[in-house]
Amino acid sequence: MKQKKMSHNFYDFCVELIESRGVKIREIAEVTYGLQKPYLDEITVDDAETAVRAVIHKREAQFAIMTGLELDRLSEEGMLQGPIADIIKEDFSLYGVDEILALSVVNVYGSIGLTNFGYLDKAKEGVIKEIDEKSRNPDQVNTFFDDLICAIAAAAASKMAHQFT
Amino acid sequence: MKQKKMSHNFYDFCVELIESRGVKIREIAEVTYGLQKPYLDEITVDDAETAVRAVIHKREAQFAIMTGLELDRLSEEGMLQGPIADIIKEDFSLYGVDEILALSVVNVYGSIGLTNFGYLDKAKEGVIKEIDEKSRNPDQVNTFFDDLICAIAAAAASKMAHQFT
Amino acid sequence: MKQKKMSHNFYDFCVELIESRGVKIREIAEVTYGLQKPYLDEITVDDAETAVRAVIHKREAQFAIMTGLELDRLSEEGMLQGPIADIIKEDFSLYGVDEILALSVVNVYGSIGLTNFGYLDKAKEGVIKEIDEKSRNPDQVNTFFDDLICAIAAAAASKMAHQFT
Amino acid sequence: MKQKKMSHNFYDFCVELIESRGVKIREIAEVTYGLQKPYLDEITVDDAETAVRAVIHKREAQFAIMTGLELDRLSEEGMLQGPIADIIKEDFSLYGVDEILALSVVNVYGSIGLTNFGYLDKAKEGVIKEIDEKSRNPDQVNTFFDDLICAIAAAAASKMAHQFT
Repeated sequence: MKQKKMSHNFYDFCVELIESRGVKIREIAEVTYGLQKPYLDEITVDDAETAVRAVIHKREAQFAIMTGLELDRLSEEGMLQGPIADIIKEDFSLYGVDEILALSVVNVYGSIGLTNFGYLDKAKEGVIKEIDEKSRNPDQVNTFFDDLICAIAAAAASKMAHQFT
Repeated sequence: MKQKKMSHNFYDFCVELIESRGVKIREIAEVTYGLQKPYLDEITVDDAETAVRAVIHKREAQFAIMTGLELDRLSEEGMLQGPIADIIKEDFSLYGVDEILALSVVNVYGSIGLTNFGYLDKAKEGVIKEIDEKSRNPDQVNTFFDDLICAIAAAAASKMAHQFT
Repeated sequence: MKQKKMSHNFYDFCVELIESRGVKIREIAEVTYGLQKPYLDEITVDDAETAVRAVIHKREAQFAIMTGLELDRLSEEGMLQGPIADIIKEDFSLYGVDEILALSVVNVYGSIGLTNFGYLDKAKEGVIKEIDEKSRNPDQVNTFFDDLICAIAAAAASKMAHQFT
Repeated sequence: MKQKKMSHNFYDFCVELIESRGVKIREIAEVTYGLQKPYLDEITVDDAETAVRAVIHKREAQFAIMTGLELDRLSEEGMLQGPIADIIKEDFSLYGVDEILALSVVNVYGSIGLTNFGYLDKAKEGVIKEIDEKSRNPDQVNTFFDDLICAIAAAAASKMAHQFT
């Protein structure tokens, strides 16, 4: 890849991708804040937003976000072929590639994010719940999106734990 | 390692290790059952127990269990040296090696177990809660134990999902 | 996903996907055989082929193979959008999603496969070398394919190690 | 864990642990340099040493190093009990917990380190080879040490790739 191509600002692109699917960075920050508030008394939602933005600045996270959301888009536009088309479209419960991609985001600040990721993905708190409801709209595919949002929120919580402990 | 040494029955040893810390295999099965009952109507606690025992038969799980519980024992007996002694004894919140070992158990039946693992570790349901309470007893160290029990229950839930879907 | 759709025979589909890109299952088996021969005297290439086919029967492996090769196809056909299009097309050296997907195949038989996976990916032995050369053809994208083949060969080697030790 | 205890300087402690087993940070840097020189023309061994030290400053790496080397020490001193005692002492080929701990170091700079880690672990280049030979001395246990050194060298190579690309 030529240096020039590298100048793509992946951070801005990822933020746009996320917001174009109806989730604001501030909303992810609120989920992160909710996770860490019981342990870190002094933090604010602004601190959480700073942490969320730091996660999205990490290349490892950017690659996972761009790849996963491209698969969601291709699924929505009916461009996937073979059995994987239905598996992704219907978010088949045994399909784990979405969790694997999310894991690579969670790991950006170490393995302690695993617990928060799993909890969010199952408990569907805050904005995660709204995504889950949207994805019942048959035109929208959020197979990767919901796991990625949980992963970003969880990784940001890990960052705050490392920073404020 | 000589073939003869391989004849150690790791499964029986792991079951004993777990039960000697006050958790019955049946209790782990009840956690697994609670996780999967909403999705798999026809399952029983007996099915869940079969799945839990299958997890403990897997070598990858056995190695993680034996290594983690040996670290908990050495910590209880004051045999760990250096900063890691306090980190493990007090289950330092940023220490993630327990999560990593647990992850290698969760992955035994694929990445879909991640969500259940994280959920259990945070929501502290059933027997997991009791372990958590015991670990406030300063003589007992359950730094690895609680994550491993969550991981076994979560992996067994994945196995049931694969089997009954 | 309806039960009927589940009847897709993912195994046959994955074998076809791999062979349509010019790699025979037997060739992957030869790589696996080369890895394990020094340690396991009695094994044959047929044993290795059995192990390779067992890997491709695992759902976790099938999902990774189908997802990765769909991304390679979409890249070849110019259907990817945004910065990820160039990243995948040119197999950008910092892009790690291909390694992550491969890791989920490697882990199918436990973490001991990691070493063989990394070795193959770098040393480019046997059929892996040919894939690497093909991918200099600008019409072909093997960003995910080469890592997946290394992962299948490495996982099969782990299976043989578990089976024959 | 009290704030005071946190003041343990884990970095210095980890460097001492590594050097007390006969490996100099400079020697790890030479392995990293050897890995990246073919791709990054302008780098020096000093750059590589800076990258190696940065890896050892990461908490995730420190926890893995301290835990793994404590297990090696306890094994040398005959303090491990149960089947895990022989498994670790003899570096049983199917035991994968050492690879898992190493993976958490490799991941500190993203998944692209996987390939270099596996390659080093198998090809036994430079200082890795010397460790491997030492571990044939029955008094020394390097089950975790050799994988951790490979992981540190590989993670440092990833850091350089991210930095200089």
